[in-house]
Amino acid sequence: MKIKPLVAALLIATPGLVNAAEFVLTDAAANIDVGAWKVTNKDLGIQQPFSVEKRQLYGGKQMGVETLVINNGELEITLVPTRGMGIFNVKKDGKRILGWDSPVKEIVNPAFIDLESRNGLGWLDGFNEMMVRCGYEWTGHPGVDDNGQLLSLHGRLQNTPASTVKVTIDDQPPYTITVEGEVSERTFKKAELVTLTSFSVTPGSNQFAVHDTLTNKADYEDEYQIIYHSNFGRPILEKGAKITAAASEISPFNDYAKKGLKDWQTYLGPTKGYDEMVYNLKPIGDKQGNTLAVLHNQAGNLGVSVGYNIKQLPVLTIWKNTDTLQQGYVTGIEPGTSYAYNTKYQRPLGLVPKIGAGASKHFDVTYTVLRNSGEVKQALAAVADIQGKRPVKQVKKPLVDLSKVH
Amino acid sequence: MKIKPLVAALLIATPGLVNAAEFVLTDAAANIDVGAWKVTNKDLGIQQPFSVEKRQLYGGKQMGVETLVINNGELEITLVPTRGMGIFNVKKDGKRILGWDSPVKEIVNPAFIDLESRNGLGWLDGFNEMMVRCGYEWTGHPGVDDNGQLLSLHGRLQNTPASTVKVTIDDQPPYTITVEGEVSERTFKKAELVTLTSFSVTPGSNQFAVHDTLTNKADYEDEYQIIYHSNFGRPILEKGAKITAAASEISPFNDYAKKGLKDWQTYLGPTKGYDEMVYNLKPIGDKQGNTLAVLHNQAGNLGVSVGYNIKQLPVLTIWKNTDTLQQGYVTGIEPGTSYAYNTKYQRPLGLVPKIGAGASKHFDVTYTVLRNSGEVKQALAAVADIQGKRPVKQVKKPLVDLSKVH
Amino acid sequence: MKIKPLVAALLIATPGLVNAAEFVLTDAAANIDVGAWKVTNKDLGIQQPFSVEKRQLYGGKQMGVETLVINNGELEITLVPTRGMGIFNVKKDGKRILGWDSPVKEIVNPAFIDLESRNGLGWLDGFNEMMVRCGYEWTGHPGVDDNGQLLSLHGRLQNTPASTVKVTIDDQPPYTITVEGEVSERTFKKAELVTLTSFSVTPGSNQFAVHDTLTNKADYEDEYQIIYHSNFGRPILEKGAKITAAASEISPFNDYAKKGLKDWQTYLGPTKGYDEMVYNLKPIGDKQGNTLAVLHNQAGNLGVSVGYNIKQLPVLTIWKNTDTLQQGYVTGIEPGTSYAYNTKYQRPLGLVPKIGAGASKHFDVTYTVLRNSGEVKQALAAVADIQGKRPVKQVKKPLVDLSKVH
Repeated sequence: MKIKPLVAALLIATPGLVNAAEFVLTDAAANIDVGAWKVTNKDLGIQQPFSVEKRQLYGGKQMGVETLVINNGELEITLVPTRGMGIFNVKKDGKRILGWDSPVKEIVNPAFIDLESRNGLGWLDGFNEMMVRCGYEWTGHPGVDDNGQLLSLHGRLQNTPASTVKVTIDDQPPYTITVEGEVSERTFKKAELVTLTSFSVTPGSNQFAVHDTLTNKADYEDEYQIIYHSNFGRPILEKGAKITAAASEISPFNDYAKKGLKDWQTYLGPTKGYDEMVYNLKPIGDKQGNTLAVLHNQAGNLGVSVGYNIKQLPVLTIWKNTDTLQQGYVTGIEPGTSYAYNTKYQRPLGLVPKIGAGASKHFDVTYTVLRNSGEVKQALAAVADIQGKRPVKQVKKPLVDLSKVH
Repeated sequence: MKIKPLVAALLIATPGLVNAAEFVLTDAAANIDVGAWKVTNKDLGIQQPFSVEKRQLYGGKQMGVETLVINNGELEITLVPTRGMGIFNVKKDGKRILGWDSPVKEIVNPAFIDLESRNGLGWLDGFNEMMVRCGYEWTGHPGVDDNGQLLSLHGRLQNTPASTVKVTIDDQPPYTITVEGEVSERTFKKAELVTLTSFSVTPGSNQFAVHDTLTNKADYEDEYQIIYHSNFGRPILEKGAKITAAASEISPFNDYAKKGLKDWQTYLGPTKGYDEMVYNLKPIGDKQGNTLAVLHNQAGNLGVSVGYNIKQLPVLTIWKNTDTLQQGYVTGIEPGTSYAYNTKYQRPLGLVPKIGAGASKHFDVTYTVLRNSGEVKQALAAVADIQGKRPVKQVKKPLVDLSKVH
Repeated sequence: MKIKPLVAALLIATPGLVNAAEFVLTDAAANIDVGAWKVTNKDLGIQQPFSVEKRQLYGGKQMGVETLVINNGELEITLVPTRGMGIFNVKKDGKRILGWDSPVKEIVNPAFIDLESRNGLGWLDGFNEMMVRCGYEWTGHPGVDDNGQLLSLHGRLQNTPASTVKVTIDDQPPYTITVEGEVSERTFKKAELVTLTSFSVTPGSNQFAVHDTLTNKADYEDEYQIIYHSNFGRPILEKGAKITAAASEISPFNDYAKKGLKDWQTYLGPTKGYDEMVYNLKPIGDKQGNTLAVLHNQAGNLGVSVGYNIKQLPVLTIWKNTDTLQQGYVTGIEPGTSYAYNTKYQRPLGLVPKIGAGASKHFDVTYTVLRNSGEVKQALAAVADIQGKRPVKQVKKPLVDLSKVH
């Protein structure tokens, strides 16, 4: 009974030569919202199984939240348009494979979040996704910037509902499923940063990617920052799990992380009192700048790789939060323009880039679920290939001396 | 026409031996929301009249707010799931008997409240309930805590929508109606305090109760505080109304309240310029710790009693806000773990308890509408029984010297 | 198919002698919300074409926003009940004639706005209307008041959803269409300012008006402030556009505006780096206090006049924000009780009036679209008539020396 409206949408969306089915689910400018919606391969006469479904959430601080669940036959990925097109989690065979168990259980409507609360830590009231975009007006730890303005933790995008959501499905193999969502950071006289997020996956694949385009719609140059805060807990993270990343250098974020520097590649099991150790890496890439970080379990037969390009995202943060399960047992692989320091400490490091009036910046991040030891080995080999014979130099001194800043 | 879905819910909820009808109205984890809903005694084949109805509110800052109206044949009690399962008011014979007339007229969706606004007084934008839970992460007047964080007035729970709402009705006399609602205070790295609130009443009764269980879901010990801010205006509060509470000691909250200490038990009529006088009591209980506070009108033929246990809630605040009707003519009977001072002033008083990892704390508060002089006298006799021959010692010096703190 | 419910509403609303059709669209106290709704002249058996339609917005931060679109046959005016009954824009022949292109594209639900963010500049996250009421608890630039409270930019009313919305249509010529909306600023112990906004227009007219009544529902005198922030961009604003206002004196808001003082009446085209120049005028009125400000395009064949009364609104701010199109090319004609300085700087100027307990203040502002050179000339003649032979004295020194305040 869904077929008729779908065909109608198809015809409207693709006059002339039909080469993709396009479904506009939300469009603030056109005042469109389709409500409950689902499309499957059968609706489009495609044999390879997949579905894309828009869901409404209820209860607690979920009121008004919408999710988009993409099942490509191999993975079930949940996007959250209401929370900046973030990726909530990824399931395989009905079980969560990418993502983590945050103390925050609900998918929180930004209407209930006050980012500046707790001295700029309000973002923590909603943090539970596998992938959060931390940006773009600013990113990093909260603090009062040089101009006297409090910059709240990790910026505003993730707590901004998408203005548009559009699903496109190619009508030719590999029948790529694309979800575009525009998320706007618009404040009169302050920011006109508009990000067209794009998520893509093909039916049957163990890989998906985001391809984002940040555009400065203002007539003035602006600063921007972005961290792709990609978070993984169980089942991949466990005692003896290992992170491998092509890099020239690693240093601890702060004094506390110094003691874990030597063992930065391996993970403890859930450890009471661990809190978090954070490391700043200088990633290296292949000739095109492409690079990879790989996290795998102890046995080396389950993992995830995060691929990105160091020309787009020149730095990498590894966030090791192997505290207890209840506290949030999780590690972050976080390629970005910037580390997690407050913006004012990153300007002197050259890590607060600028974007010209009308200019655009592209960011691509690819996530691959490594399903067996063969896939894990292949990913590790790719990292080794990029790393070559260069060592990852361990530098004991943090990039920013937080004991001297205030 | 409501019967069919109700029966379906019943069958689903109680496979096997049916001994209660259970209705899940909201469940964030299961993504359930029943929408408009009502059950009556007739739906369940019970003769004694009652009804429970879920309502959606509209207009102004009420957008998205849900209430649950329980009519037990004697009282009509309105709970507000969207506002932390608070009790809005209680009517008898169609007229408000418990509750008050706040300047705040709407039942405000927390989405419109910024708790940290006005230096932490944002809670006042929504305060109009008969019973507000002030807690549990902190309670009391706003102020910057020793760690530099602003603690906003009376905590966050009341401005947190319930994650679950479940109505249970026993199928045996006295056909107890129970409403459970889970309200979560969850912030990554900051709090995992989950309160399962429970409201219960029996058909025909003039009494209802809350039985709350606070659980610290974290793996670390945490502080907690709670005040059951129970507020009564007309028709019980009037010139000559009287409060009686079993206590060993009373002292003024601040210098301003000193002048009313002597007459703490009696109330003025609406009095311009009165503002508020607040008193800190040390309640005493019977052998089990149970105690009672009674408020009654001048004639002594209408009142309310608040029963609680001093092992759970060791202190009592009496809030006398007998200012003008427009300003909010109201008194608060507020058993709690703590007084209304900012948290940092209560730690030295030993009034900021801790809750262990995984531990639970229970709180029971019983409200009884006293409908005639017989019931008032009976309640007063119960207080006298607990008080015995011990006097309520009047101490002129406030527990905290607010003139010396900053 | 809309007729039946409309007639029902009509009969209910006007028992006895029918002389107006009254439609209650929203009423928080009565818990009424009609949902999607529309009425046209045909529904009421009136020949002159008009329609009033309630719309629901979707997408991004528009979630939950309602607009009311009034088409009087000549103009299409969009009111926003969810945003304090502001006027979003006015179209003629399908094109925007009054209003402007803000960097903020969506009509933002106040639930997504934190007024105190960015040191009190959160209001800028939603600013895009043709007419914003800046008040009434306070108005002006953000800053910490003498009592230590941050007063956020331009007060709270515009980010407060209307508690009531009522449409009335006279059944006799000229069939005046009236939209009343009550917007409440209610905070326990802080404010009980209730504004009954009223918008009125007649079918076929090029003029519409607001008639607002602010009532202090408290039992105590209170301060209040209001600026009718009326904003116009293209097509009226352009290089060579001109503002004319009956005034005795003009001075720059700050040092930066000094250099534009001489040319205050004329406008530049979109100018990179211009930012904003603001001027404080002392308006003069006719014997009744009525006065007029006129903005017209370079050719003098298109414009708008803003009529008000200096007994109600004694001061006038002219906001020239002729920066680039993307930045927001716009000018504000802003009659008010106050200028745009923070409240604490306006008290010494006598521009923070008080409103007694229970007292009401009325404010009337009339907007006229000037459709040709004849109408522009007529409006300018009206201004000249009021101005008479008195010059507009140019005073170089700002009323407040912002370099000396902190």
